[in-house]
Amino acid sequence: MKKVINGVDDVVRDALNGIAAAHPNLAVDFENKVITRAGGPTAGKVGLISGGGSGHEPLHGGFVGLGMLDAACAGEIFTSPVPDQMLAATKAVDAGAGVLHIVKNYTGDVLNFQMAAELAADDGVEVATVVINDDVAVQDSLYTAGRRGTGATVFVEKIAGALAEQLVPLKSVVDVATEVNERSRSFGIALSACTTPASGKPGFDLPDDEVELGVGIHGEPGRRRAPLGTSSELVNVAVSAINDDLPLAGHDLLVMLNGLGGTPLVELYVAYDDVATQIAALGGRIKRQLVGNYITSLDMAGFTVTVCRLTDDLTSLWDAPVNTPALRWGV
Amino acid sequence: MKKVINGVDDVVRDALNGIAAAHPNLAVDFENKVITRAGGPTAGKVGLISGGGSGHEPLHGGFVGLGMLDAACAGEIFTSPVPDQMLAATKAVDAGAGVLHIVKNYTGDVLNFQMAAELAADDGVEVATVVINDDVAVQDSLYTAGRRGTGATVFVEKIAGALAEQLVPLKSVVDVATEVNERSRSFGIALSACTTPASGKPGFDLPDDEVELGVGIHGEPGRRRAPLGTSSELVNVAVSAINDDLPLAGHDLLVMLNGLGGTPLVELYVAYDDVATQIAALGGRIKRQLVGNYITSLDMAGFTVTVCRLTDDLTSLWDAPVNTPALRWGV
Repeated sequence: MKKVINGVDDVVRDALNGIAAAHPNLAVDFENKVITRAGGPTAGKVGLISGGGSGHEPLHGGFVGLGMLDAACAGEIFTSPVPDQMLAATKAVDAGAGVLHIVKNYTGDVLNFQMAAELAADDGVEVATVVINDDVAVQDSLYTAGRRGTGATVFVEKIAGALAEQLVPLKSVVDVATEVNERSRSFGIALSACTTPASGKPGFDLPDDEVELGVGIHGEPGRRRAPLGTSSELVNVAVSAINDDLPLAGHDLLVMLNGLGGTPLVELYVAYDDVATQIAALGGRIKRQLVGNYITSLDMAGFTVTVCRLTDDLTSLWDAPVNTPALRWGV
Repeated sequence: MKKVINGVDDVVRDALNGIAAAHPNLAVDFENKVITRAGGPTAGKVGLISGGGSGHEPLHGGFVGLGMLDAACAGEIFTSPVPDQMLAATKAVDAGAGVLHIVKNYTGDVLNFQMAAELAADDGVEVATVVINDDVAVQDSLYTAGRRGTGATVFVEKIAGALAEQLVPLKSVVDVATEVNERSRSFGIALSACTTPASGKPGFDLPDDEVELGVGIHGEPGRRRAPLGTSSELVNVAVSAINDDLPLAGHDLLVMLNGLGGTPLVELYVAYDDVATQIAALGGRIKRQLVGNYITSLDMAGFTVTVCRLTDDLTSLWDAPVNTPALRWGV
């Protein structure tokens, strides 16, 4: 195992130190491993929190800032944060208008966020939860009952975050987050496994000439193994799976071609060319797009495709100003 | 070899298609493999061009846009663009105020840009050239006479690009680009080799427990091999090499911790924590910083550190608005 680390048990702490040093707009509560906006919560604004295992950077800490999250809880690598972290984050961002928990659908995350919400309610904080479950690859998975949550998380955090800046009630933020999740679908393909610092070896074996179709962002098995194939063939599997579940024809779309960490950007652009061509051929109209590493799986090679059916309102919220380490425009 | 491509010879063309589809603010001349700003040149503004082999994305196409480059020439993977591409780019961005060629110091790039400059001069376009040579690792290298050009290229493109937006004369843009290059130093460390599509196998052999200290961005040999070591130990080699060449004590600094493509962002933050700590211990004052993948070497694992001694004027130009795929603020 070759990693740029100081010790297997120090990765998350050291990375949080690096995040604090790199991003003056963020503040880090090191005891609770919570990243918040510097300057604290905005009076009267619904607070938005997410979190999950580390190793998926920039998710979630890279999405904290104006127009997106108020706080992110960092678990250990590929391990849910604990309820105490989530409770600390909830209290840190509560400004009297309630707090939304944006939770990717993994069993540990769901249970821990639920416990944190109950503890927060005991302390008088109104909490609502939206569970993200956009991954069409499998119905149940290694760490999940129901569909896994993946790329739609970025869309929900951005769009719900933009609406929250307008100081609307908690229910409105919940509604738009729910709407974005329901209108979004994802599918991922791995060319290689990733290696966690703790295990020191690849999380699964993948022959040199095969890919995992429908892989999860921790390397969970997908639908099946297949020969490597061209970019066009791989993208076709992903786009077809999404289109079978949520037809794209005639819709305005937001599309993300996301790298899993180990795939060079030049290859992501090759894949995005195929995504754009194939979605157009299906009759979808791409109006907004992201290409890059937004939800990674450490050093895994491969990509995920996420598509959201837009409305005019959702497009406006997507275009609204955002100032985070990983997404920034309009400011 | 596992890559998301359609064919070894199609990578650059397909990636340019993907870039054009992903970034509506950019335009692509596919015949010449030149990326420009959509909307053409700004009257009276010095045009800024860079370019080089592909495989280093987002460099250079990801730095085309308001406040940075006017055009980027994309060579084949790790191969200099040819003079005809550079000439086409030069003519495309010429708005009567002259054109600056920003050239990383690799022999092929230098010779080809020189020929393009002569051809452009024959056509009546005033061209100036600044060669970037910030890498302190080795005096000469596999593809270079003199020091290699690496991370300072991003600083030069940003700062000279900001000044050019003020419609100053070509000489002023040349002077600031030269100043930034002279005030900047870099050092890189590889944990693994990268694999080009054409070769299909890693460019060099690196034992499981060793790193290449002072590696070039195409995998060129550095100063020496060494045991892997901790993040703190690796960063110390890089920061010490820079500080030995350009003492940092008492200076305001711009710092980039750059990933070479295959290292997860969480590890880059771990390394940046060590960079910030060690530079502070040396008496340097970090005023601005970038952490992420800005000049990559395909899927190489490892990082580079680049430091620039700031002045108040350079800081203001760094902070000026920029709107490119890879750097965006103030707009």
